[in-house]
Amino acid sequence: MTTPVTPVAPPLKDELDIVIPTIRNLDFLEMWRPFFQPYHLIIVQDGDPSKIIKVPDGFDYELYNRNDINRILGPKASCISFKDSACRCFGFMVSKKKYIFTIDDDCFVAKDPTGKDINALQQHIHNLLSPSTPFFFNTLYDPYREGADFVRGYPFSMREGVPTAISHGLWLNIPDYDAPTQLVKPRERNTRYVDAVLTIPKGTIFPMCGMNLGFDRELIGPAMYFGLMGDGQPIGRYDDMWAGWCAKVICDHLSLGVKTGLPYIWHSKASNPFVNLKKEYKGIYWQEDIIPFFQSVTFSKESTTVQKCYIELSKMVKEKLSKVDPYFQKLADSMVTWIEAWEELNSPAKSAPAANADAKRSRPLFIFFHSV
Amino acid sequence: MTTPVTPVAPPLKDELDIVIPTIRNLDFLEMWRPFFQPYHLIIVQDGDPSKIIKVPDGFDYELYNRNDINRILGPKASCISFKDSACRCFGFMVSKKKYIFTIDDDCFVAKDPTGKDINALQQHIHNLLSPSTPFFFNTLYDPYREGADFVRGYPFSMREGVPTAISHGLWLNIPDYDAPTQLVKPRERNTRYVDAVLTIPKGTIFPMCGMNLGFDRELIGPAMYFGLMGDGQPIGRYDDMWAGWCAKVICDHLSLGVKTGLPYIWHSKASNPFVNLKKEYKGIYWQEDIIPFFQSVTFSKESTTVQKCYIELSKMVKEKLSKVDPYFQKLADSMVTWIEAWEELNSPAKSAPAANADAKRSRPLFIFFHSV
Repeated sequence: MTTPVTPVAPPLKDELDIVIPTIRNLDFLEMWRPFFQPYHLIIVQDGDPSKIIKVPDGFDYELYNRNDINRILGPKASCISFKDSACRCFGFMVSKKKYIFTIDDDCFVAKDPTGKDINALQQHIHNLLSPSTPFFFNTLYDPYREGADFVRGYPFSMREGVPTAISHGLWLNIPDYDAPTQLVKPRERNTRYVDAVLTIPKGTIFPMCGMNLGFDRELIGPAMYFGLMGDGQPIGRYDDMWAGWCAKVICDHLSLGVKTGLPYIWHSKASNPFVNLKKEYKGIYWQEDIIPFFQSVTFSKESTTVQKCYIELSKMVKEKLSKVDPYFQKLADSMVTWIEAWEELNSPAKSAPAANADAKRSRPLFIFFHSV
Repeated sequence: MTTPVTPVAPPLKDELDIVIPTIRNLDFLEMWRPFFQPYHLIIVQDGDPSKIIKVPDGFDYELYNRNDINRILGPKASCISFKDSACRCFGFMVSKKKYIFTIDDDCFVAKDPTGKDINALQQHIHNLLSPSTPFFFNTLYDPYREGADFVRGYPFSMREGVPTAISHGLWLNIPDYDAPTQLVKPRERNTRYVDAVLTIPKGTIFPMCGMNLGFDRELIGPAMYFGLMGDGQPIGRYDDMWAGWCAKVICDHLSLGVKTGLPYIWHSKASNPFVNLKKEYKGIYWQEDIIPFFQSVTFSKESTTVQKCYIELSKMVKEKLSKVDPYFQKLADSMVTWIEAWEELNSPAKSAPAANADAKRSRPLFIFFHSV
């Protein structure tokens, strides 16, 4: 005799989209099947749109290629990068869900020190649904985890925390290094499982990696623009960095939290350091100016929403970073285009579920939609 | 046949003192013998000076009781707390070494997840001898650890780091909670071994616990004043917090680093939460004003040394915190007395090894000095 089991719905099943940028068949999903299958996937196909991307059976997904992006956004499609994983942010824009988890297609399920498969998505959800503590440092890390709390000397008025906007996960095996470090340490592997989640303090920016990332689209979505990278641009591999710098200063201004640490994924394969060097080298010297710029960003009191902050930030970028390179003028314009496109697809009228013709147009018929 | 072994000297053997405040026999040292025996101990006996504190055989130590403190400092002894572990900072002042490790006598050797005894002192030394990275966050934690580095997007100009002034270690078993949390969660134990060391970013203050703490006395010693606590004072258990807040803002100003995380010690016994509540309750509401005060502290350009910063800070404390309670006026005066006493015992002439009469007086004859 077996005891009847009450099925437990996967957390946030109808409130979270998984966004995957790719140029290849998504065989990597097989390994994630136990964790991802209940969720809806948004696949952003990069590169040649005539190529057919195979998705393993049983996944519920929509897929956009470059032709789709061009048709949906029209001239505003210029803000979406091509031939760079930065294109993933298109998926953030067309999602109608509250939460996003985005992952690269060379990331597999990692194991915790006991040998158990890590459900990365579940940990991101846990991070996003518990508060952050950006105003004071807790030496026992996330005070909301089981078995932890705020330590002696932590002000009680700050213990409620603030809403968490971003959950930044890490990687075992291949670390996320820049090309010079890859070249110098070709054999380095990250084998250290650090069992911690922590809030990145207010006023501190950080290098956000897009490989394994969760966020609250309603709280911070419009700041998750991955910039202009790849084809026709002087720079690559700074897409997630750009989004991280912008999102963090906006989170700080709006009193939202950013967490980093768990969950780990297994990053399977190092990208080619020579190719990376070519993509990165301008970023490597530009960032010496970009970081101090972001460290000094302050927003006006009028910037009370992410969109308003982002538009204000685009003006600061144009004013302060154009000196570094004319590229930043173009990037600043794209930041504005991104917000315009975001608002077009996400205005209350258009995001209502098929309530009118506009809404239908915002979920185009020419996407591939595959039901389980 | 055995291979001859070249003896390896314990690191910093002649450059580090271990400071222990106590009211009881130091049996706890037995467990630390393999790690501490090569080092010199400074024992600060709190409470009744007529009591004899037994130190296990084989340790090299000097011991100061309240009579010694009064004789050495004269009227300036008023800045050293009585009947509170805050008295430990007297040990920092009389040390002539570059590094200090301080530990409570209810702290034992913890085990790492493989079951191996943790040499806490060795990890502190490692933390102190490798740089800190307060200006930008590294998502793989301490980039100077073996198997780690700076991640993609970390500015190269910041990778040299800055000197580390403080190494803040943590505790397994009994967590360092305030009385209200102790009362609410009497059974909580810290069982999570987080295998990380990280730099607390510039601009972020933190709750520094004095239980398991290393620091560079030359870099930050004069800021390591543990305040006025215990007998005759309205507050207790905020001694290390006070030192941590002051030291962190001064480290930030002088571009020095503060690390937290490893090593763990085993904290054996929770102190009485009712007694703690009595000691803490003023601190618990005062800290609501103290934290914003420290978060807004900025030093003048003239404050180029720890001593100058500390004197400037004492003026700010008097001006801004006296409104909270007249106690802070007294504390601000004591901060000045502390610096005067520090300079008296640590001026170049007096700290030279017995070069003149003054120097002899600064290492008084009436201390107990026990050689191995």
